[in-house]
Parts: sequence; structure tokens; C-alpha cells
Amino acid sequence: MAENNIQLTSTISQDNTLTLALQAIDIPQPGADEVIVRIEAAPLNPSDLGVMFSVADMAKATQSGTETRPVISADIAAKFMPSVKTRVGKATAVGNEGAGTVIAAGSSPAAQALMGKTVAVIGGGTFRQYIAANVRSCLVHTDGTTAKQAASSFVNPLTVLSMVETMRAEGHKAIIHAAAASNLGQMLNRVCIADGIDLINIVRKDEQETLLREMGAKYIVNSSRDSFLADLTAAIIETGATIAFDPIGGGQLTSDILSCMEVAAARDMTEHSIYGSDIFKQVYIYGALDRGPITLNRSFGFAWAVSGFLLFNILGKFSPDTVVAMRQRVADEITTTFASHYTHEVTLAEVLQLRAMAAYGKQATGEKYLITPQG
Amino acid sequence: MAENNIQLTSTISQDNTLTLALQAIDIPQPGADEVIVRIEAAPLNPSDLGVMFSVADMAKATQSGTETRPVISADIAAKFMPSVKTRVGKATAVGNEGAGTVIAAGSSPAAQALMGKTVAVIGGGTFRQYIAANVRSCLVHTDGTTAKQAASSFVNPLTVLSMVETMRAEGHKAIIHAAAASNLGQMLNRVCIADGIDLINIVRKDEQETLLREMGAKYIVNSSRDSFLADLTAAIIETGATIAFDPIGGGQLTSDILSCMEVAAARDMTEHSIYGSDIFKQVYIYGALDRGPITLNRSFGFAWAVSGFLLFNILGKFSPDTVVAMRQRVADEITTTFASHYTHEVTLAEVLQLRAMAAYGKQATGEKYLITPQG
Repeated sequence: MAENNIQLTSTISQDNTLTLALQAIDIPQPGADEVIVRIEAAPLNPSDLGVMFSVADMAKATQSGTETRPVISADIAAKFMPSVKTRVGKATAVGNEGAGTVIAAGSSPAAQALMGKTVAVIGGGTFRQYIAANVRSCLVHTDGTTAKQAASSFVNPLTVLSMVETMRAEGHKAIIHAAAASNLGQMLNRVCIADGIDLINIVRKDEQETLLREMGAKYIVNSSRDSFLADLTAAIIETGATIAFDPIGGGQLTSDILSCMEVAAARDMTEHSIYGSDIFKQVYIYGALDRGPITLNRSFGFAWAVSGFLLFNILGKFSPDTVVAMRQRVADEITTTFASHYTHEVTLAEVLQLRAMAAYGKQATGEKYLITPQG
Repeated sequence: MAENNIQLTSTISQDNTLTLALQAIDIPQPGADEVIVRIEAAPLNPSDLGVMFSVADMAKATQSGTETRPVISADIAAKFMPSVKTRVGKATAVGNEGAGTVIAAGSSPAAQALMGKTVAVIGGGTFRQYIAANVRSCLVHTDGTTAKQAASSFVNPLTVLSMVETMRAEGHKAIIHAAAASNLGQMLNRVCIADGIDLINIVRKDEQETLLREMGAKYIVNSSRDSFLADLTAAIIETGATIAFDPIGGGQLTSDILSCMEVAAARDMTEHSIYGSDIFKQVYIYGALDRGPITLNRSFGFAWAVSGFLLFNILGKFSPDTVVAMRQRVADEITTTFASHYTHEVTLAEVLQLRAMAAYGKQATGEKYLITPQG
């Protein structure tokens, strides 16, 4: 195939510069167990921004190149260069997931069986037009599912299912979720309703509360209210939630969640203990929307843990059968439970416009970009 | 038995006052499976201070009563009263552990077998002269072991053995310990040397470094030095330590430990990942020497956890056989591996002297008080 295959790359060079560009490469030949997927839709996830922007000062980025081949350049402070030394001089292909049509397949029957199918792929730089993927890594969608519907098949759906699975595996019975009005939060809300799990949604704005209320959420607490801690504690008492997932990290929300859990846990203690209650309280931090320090005020005894939560590490803890069942559920419910909502569609060239970058770089809750690499 | 049984109590009253006093109670009669232990030695542990002082402002405490029956009074700020509401109006007996001679025993053969033995007991307020204890909760020492030698049989020895067991159970291969020159730290150093486990000792002062060096410690890093982070990282690279135990809590030492572990873990990565390394890093916080907030700077990826570590919760995770083996090892090695060193011996009345309280209240590393309730 002599067609062009455009991919979005992020390159850090020795002179403390980050460059984002569109690179033309060949369309690969599939190995025996591989297929070639024409990527028709790929979501711009927060984790993609981390790869794209790395530690560069994007507020002062400049744009050059042409309209169809824009180039973005940004400076990296010298102090940050050691932390990215393994990236220097390499063009890193960006894009964690995406979906499209299988247009070529290797010789194996499993690969041949996917010809013409809509599949979702994970990893490898999906912000491109054509990608080679191993058959086993493809999530095969049912006929009738479009690439746009299938674009976000991995990161959000599997993170949500991993949260629920972690809750069950670790013996908790209800979940607290922060920044709960996000696409992921809406998905978690739908899964919890379907599975009969109590979910406490923490939001910051009235309209987010309204949105989730309309989606059937029962427990919603607004962290902007003066009554936030009391509201959260009341919801914890009602649900018995002892596990929380927080994509924010920085600040003291994690500490507040643990303290409210402890107030709920300690309310029935007849004997005072300087160690607090013995009810175990867990907060998983799965994002870094606030990159500032996490402050733990320790008003929650000794039976607690705060941990990082990363999809690929967590999936390794589940049995293969559990993961297969998760993937099948995603395929079965991609237009319902796991439906994603995008506010903007952009081409690869449009991703590299300063104005667009300023907008999606904010990671505002409710705003979500879908890249259409064929556009 | 008509003898007096003096015990040290801490009482919080409705009028926002904390009172420490010596109370005369009857010597109890043993149940069938109980023994009466004449407490001859009990260590003053940091956790005892938590029960004694609670949330009172001890800097402004006053002393009254007599020389043999001193009474200490201190105010509690109104805002702290709700956190101790279950203590109001009750005299809480202080003292987590101690040792002495069995002077009376219940009717069961197991109880009778302990007559005249030196045993260590846990819980129930050991800062008293006579205590009833269930046979199964007694740690029976070999003949020749004195009560002073046996006084600290539970808290420090079992905490140290639980640290080592946790390291093994969770698949780590070397340990980092903060505030490592403490009695507990010296004990951990001896266990690690005996068991062939690499231990990185974090200390703050040159003399602590010298002390541990003389005790055979191989890895010692001084957090007061400018080279602390580099020294710690180098020791982690050499040992492969991915688990740490920290009795301090407040401040950013926990964060620094995780960051150094991450630098060590990431140094061989050929591919940059915005998520950091996938090597799991754990810090357990087992004390609150600094009650200020814990600050986590998040320069250590997503494969990490920070958790509370409390002996009684942790013991519940081990098999009964493991716990029995731990206790037997403590009895066998109480004068060697698990020997405690006390800098001061005080009677119950001397514990309630303002000058003594100001001294032991500092919890200075290397200073340790032993109470002799019969004195």
C-alpha cells in the first residue's frame, strides 16, 4: 500500500524543545496474527495530553508549518529535562486508543476473521490513519457499531469496570467517586445503577448535580457547598462506602473523604481509641487533574490506605476470565452503558491548532474531543 | 486479697478538663482461665502518651494532690471535645503492656501452670500494680527472664516482626525505616541482621548514625544532610528496597521516600511513561511523631500506596501459626534481639510529676521510660 499514513508525534530534543507534528509514514504490512485498522475515531484522553505536552510550557507554545501540516513548538524548563531523558531524540507516537475498520489481515484464520469488522485498539499511537494491531489486542464490536461509537472502548470502560471489580475483590460495598460528572463518572454511574451498587458522586457545580440527577444518580454531594463534609458523611453513613476513586489527587479532597469515612465508622464506637476505628478505608487516585501535592490531615486513624490506581497495573490483578468478561460487556453495551459523549470533533491537523489546544488543554469536565484521522 | 491496687487513670470531664491520677482499686479475683499478674515493669510507649494526654494542652498542665498521690490537670480546647466524646466521664486505665510475676491463678490447668512465672501482658491498663489476664493473652517467659527484661514483649517486638512478615508477604526484598535509632529501630536492625534482610536506616543525627553503625547497620542515611535524597536513592538502588515504615507521618519524608524509590525503579526504563515505573512502592505509617499533615508530591508515578500500619490490625492478617511463632521468638530472644534499653525508671507517682512529663512527653529518640509500679 503506497497511501500515506499520517501520525501525530511528540518529540523532545536536546535543546529543551518539545515539537508536535504530523508525520507521514508507510502503512505497515500485517504479520500473520495482525490486522491493519483504518482509524476513524480516537478520543483525546487526559493521558494523551500527558504524552503530547509532557513537561513543556504549553502556555507559551508557538505554531508554524502549514494549515494541513501544522507544527507546534514549546520550551521545556531545564530542570525538567532529566525527568524525560528517555524521550530525547525520539518521535513518540501519541494516542492511547481508537477504533476503525479492519482493511487488511494477516494469514492466520483469527486475523482473516476480522476483515471488514469494526474493532477498537489500545496503545501504539492511535492518533494516526492506519495502525497494525495484534488480533488478541483488538476489541471486536458487533456489526452495526460505528467507529465513533467504539472509539472509547478501553480506557474509560475498563477503568470503570476495574473500579467495580476492585470494590468487590476488596470487600467494600459502596463507592465514592470524585469529579463524578466526567464521561467516566457518567459511565460509572450507569454501571452502578445496572449492578445495584450505591455510588456517591462528588461534583463541584450545580449543573453537574442536575446532570447526574437526571441520569438517575441517587447520592450526589457538591464540594462547593459549606455543608459538603456533613453531606458526604451522611451519604457514607447511608451507603457504607469505604472505597473512593479520585482523579484529582492534589489538594485535600482525599483527606476529607477519609475523614468523613472515619466519622461514619467511629460513630458507633462505644470505646474511644487513639488509633481510630478499625474499619479499613481506601482511596485510589487514578488521575492528576490537580498536580499539586496531596495533603493528608490524618484525622482518620490507622486503618486506611491511599494508592495510585492505573488501569494497566490493575488489570494484571484480575483473572484472564474476568478481563475477557469485561471486554465482552464493553462490546455488548458500547452504545448504552459505555456510550461516550463528545463535544468536539477534530481532524489530526486541527488538534495542532493553538486555539484548539488551549481549549482541550483545560480538561474541563463535560468537554471531550474526538479525533477523526480520516477527516 | 485486701491489698491496694494502684492504677494510673486518665479522665476527661464535661467541663473540658483532663485529669491524670492514681486510683486505688481492689485486686481482682481470677476467672478459671485467668491469672493475676503483679506488674513489676511497664514501658511508657508513645501510644500510652496518646491515651494519657489525649487532646489536652499539656504544656499548660498543673499539678496538685500529694507527693504519693499527685494529680495532673490540663485543659482541652472546646473544638476537640467532640472527638473524645466517648471518653467523657470515664476513668480510662492507661498502659498497653507490662510484665511481672503470676501471684494467683484460676482453676484451669493452663492457669495453674503459670503460677510463679514471669509473663508479659498486653492491654487493659498495665500502669497498675496487679492485673487480671487471660492465660492465652500472656506471653510466658523462660525461667530466669526478669520482669524488666520482659516489660516490652509486645508492642515493639511484634511490630518489628510484623514489619518483616509484611515485607515477605507482599513480595518486597529490603526495608527502609525512618526514625531508625529508636528502641524499635534498633530491634528491627537486629532482626534484619539475623534474618539476612537489607535494612536502610534513616536517622537525623550523627550520633544516631554512629550508634547504629556500632550495632552493625550497613545502610544508614542521615536526613539532615544535603545529600540525603541522593544517599537514600543510592541505598535503594543497592538493596532494591520498595517498602518503608515511617513512625513520623507529618511532613514530606514519606513523599521523599517514594520519590527516591521511583528514581531507582525508573533508572533502567528505556521507554518513558507518563505513569512512571510499574514497580510497586509502599510506605506504611505506624506512628504520629509529627501530627502535621502528610504531604505527597506525586513525583512517583501510579504504582504506590501509603497506608496506616497498626499492630493489632496487621496481626489479624497473619495465620495463627505465624503469630504463635512470633511470640515464641520474642520469649526466646527477649534478652538479645528484643532487648529494650531504658534511660529512666520511674514509679507510678513519678510519672505524674510535671517535670518528668515534660521530659518523656518530648518522645526524644533514645530516651525511654520504664515504670516500676511496685516502687
